[in-house]
Amino acid sequence: MNIDFTYKNPTTIYFGKNALDKLKNELNNYGDTILLAYGKGAIKKSGLYDQVVSILRNSNKTIVELSGIMANPTYEKVMEGAKLVRGNNVDLILAVGGGSVIDCAKAISVSAYCEGDAWSRYWIKFEPVDNKIVPVASILTLAGTGSEMNGGSVITNNDVKLKMGRVFPSNVYPKFSILNPEYTFTLPAYQMVSGIFDMMSHLMEAYFSGEDDVTSDYLIEGLLRSIIHSAKIAVKEPQNYEARSNLMWSSTLAMNPIMGLSKTQDWEVHMIEHQLGAYTDCAHGMGLAAISLPYYRYIYQFGLDKFVRFATQVWGVDDTGKSKETVALEGIDAMEAFINECGIVSNIKDLGATEEMLPLIANSTVLLGGYKKLTATEVLEILKAA
Amino acid sequence: MNIDFTYKNPTTIYFGKNALDKLKNELNNYGDTILLAYGKGAIKKSGLYDQVVSILRNSNKTIVELSGIMANPTYEKVMEGAKLVRGNNVDLILAVGGGSVIDCAKAISVSAYCEGDAWSRYWIKFEPVDNKIVPVASILTLAGTGSEMNGGSVITNNDVKLKMGRVFPSNVYPKFSILNPEYTFTLPAYQMVSGIFDMMSHLMEAYFSGEDDVTSDYLIEGLLRSIIHSAKIAVKEPQNYEARSNLMWSSTLAMNPIMGLSKTQDWEVHMIEHQLGAYTDCAHGMGLAAISLPYYRYIYQFGLDKFVRFATQVWGVDDTGKSKETVALEGIDAMEAFINECGIVSNIKDLGATEEMLPLIANSTVLLGGYKKLTATEVLEILKAA
Repeated sequence: MNIDFTYKNPTTIYFGKNALDKLKNELNNYGDTILLAYGKGAIKKSGLYDQVVSILRNSNKTIVELSGIMANPTYEKVMEGAKLVRGNNVDLILAVGGGSVIDCAKAISVSAYCEGDAWSRYWIKFEPVDNKIVPVASILTLAGTGSEMNGGSVITNNDVKLKMGRVFPSNVYPKFSILNPEYTFTLPAYQMVSGIFDMMSHLMEAYFSGEDDVTSDYLIEGLLRSIIHSAKIAVKEPQNYEARSNLMWSSTLAMNPIMGLSKTQDWEVHMIEHQLGAYTDCAHGMGLAAISLPYYRYIYQFGLDKFVRFATQVWGVDDTGKSKETVALEGIDAMEAFINECGIVSNIKDLGATEEMLPLIANSTVLLGGYKKLTATEVLEILKAA
Repeated sequence: MNIDFTYKNPTTIYFGKNALDKLKNELNNYGDTILLAYGKGAIKKSGLYDQVVSILRNSNKTIVELSGIMANPTYEKVMEGAKLVRGNNVDLILAVGGGSVIDCAKAISVSAYCEGDAWSRYWIKFEPVDNKIVPVASILTLAGTGSEMNGGSVITNNDVKLKMGRVFPSNVYPKFSILNPEYTFTLPAYQMVSGIFDMMSHLMEAYFSGEDDVTSDYLIEGLLRSIIHSAKIAVKEPQNYEARSNLMWSSTLAMNPIMGLSKTQDWEVHMIEHQLGAYTDCAHGMGLAAISLPYYRYIYQFGLDKFVRFATQVWGVDDTGKSKETVALEGIDAMEAFINECGIVSNIKDLGATEEMLPLIANSTVLLGGYKKLTATEVLEILKAA
């Protein structure tokens, strides 16, 4: 833990089959007006919407609704929510859905009372938030982004074709999050496996950087092993509570600052995928998988020892009598086999990318890098291989 | 994650070489009177006492001192602190030291304004705390108990020869904790390795229980591997910052609720050691090591698959062509070799236990159990073997 850090995570997690029972008591801590934010109606089909509305009504809350939050939430949608918050003096934004809905809720929270253009201030210039923040809470229905217990908020601005992520400090984190793994049972397999690769990618972005020995890397290896183990079960048995509950908690941890403390990190896969997503609107996890394979097959040579460790500690590759290069590549091969076993899409053409888009994506990608800082030309090569 | 859970951990951690720089700013959040609680003077020798006093004075705080907090803090000492808190209207209890000092600070926090006998209410009857709680903060100088980021408070009552642990809810957790690994450099090797086994034991108590597949077990395996790796380095090079910083953060995590979420747990080693400690006043980690070896060599047969996993995943035992029994025992042998390599005491006679004490310890031990609930007779056999 060579790099100094500050860590604070005040979110209360209610986890399990009966977690929703805790909502009523939590609502006592907030005022009367609730913005109920959700997506395109899956929670109405599942019955969760009715349950939540019933609890809110029994607590004598006034409900204001923001529906239709999309997979890549737009700044336009954020502004729609911000107007509702101001116009109704909302006391709590209750996000019911996956990471997109929660990300959007946080964006509304910091934007509602922002003077000036929030997009420019908070997602482009990364200014500290000095205006009033509206408390956010969440009921999670999709495991993947960890937004339920962190400050992350990824927003797409269609006017400028830019998808930007911002990590807000702990006063913007959800005050409480309700995690019932059963809510994820009805998710289509496509979204489930996209979420699974999303959480793995979060861990790999933190892992593949640095030459030092740091406790966080050992935790990441453990968490990746748990995800891989449970993912294989969940793909065959989507209603296996043990596997789905492990995946749900793993996704919360995977994108939690606690897993990457004191580490230099990479995040180049996310940077490329964010621009791929801005152009194709593809599922985030699928985009990450498609980028990861060619990206890691290119950069492993610049962080060889770490890729050897990844192969042996995460994927159980037997290294007896093999060169480091062989072991490292066998680790990436093992990941590709896992991607295929789970039915995760790993070809960006299947995600809607066209030949013409690739230079546009490459040239608009933010260049970070863990073991190697890429050039736009290298990004283009990786996109072509993807 | 089959067992429902609630998780909340609001402690802010300032970690690293410059962590003390954050104290002044934090002090602004509290009133004028600080109870400075510490041990038997090590912080005066190291110079930390002078640094802290200087920051407190520069912040115009009134300092009330409670010194001489012992390795197994007594209820008598808690009452001494509680009187100081009431008499001086203390606004913040700042614990500077190891787990004993912080445990004592939390005990003072909940006892100062308790009506009736706090020992009986909070450590015997485990009543919820409904009286005023005085905020606690800590500056950690010894890695081991994790008290800097949890609600644990182990107190010894000499009148009744009982050492009892209580985990208080998150409003009793330290508000902030300052962790500078350099503060642990001057610790005698004896205390360092005692702390190392303490953190390992916390993880094993959580690990050795349950037959289900749960993410927390994978995290524990990762953390144990990091501790083992760094401990071997720190024993040879006590001033190796990388190793000591990994150990410091590992100890915070090891005794944090986050590592054992959704798990049934054991804690029998701690129960036996608490009574060993009440009779011998031995270093906690040494007592745990001495109990662990005969205890695990007895109970492994009741949780064989988990002990096989422990051997292969934590200690790297090669299981090719071996029976489960052999692999399990080789794992415990590997732990014993590690204990010896680190110079951890593993014989209770060397810790001051006499033949006559053993039945008294066995008969006063609380019986919990992960894979097997022991009888007092079995505890006595384990003590004899230790």
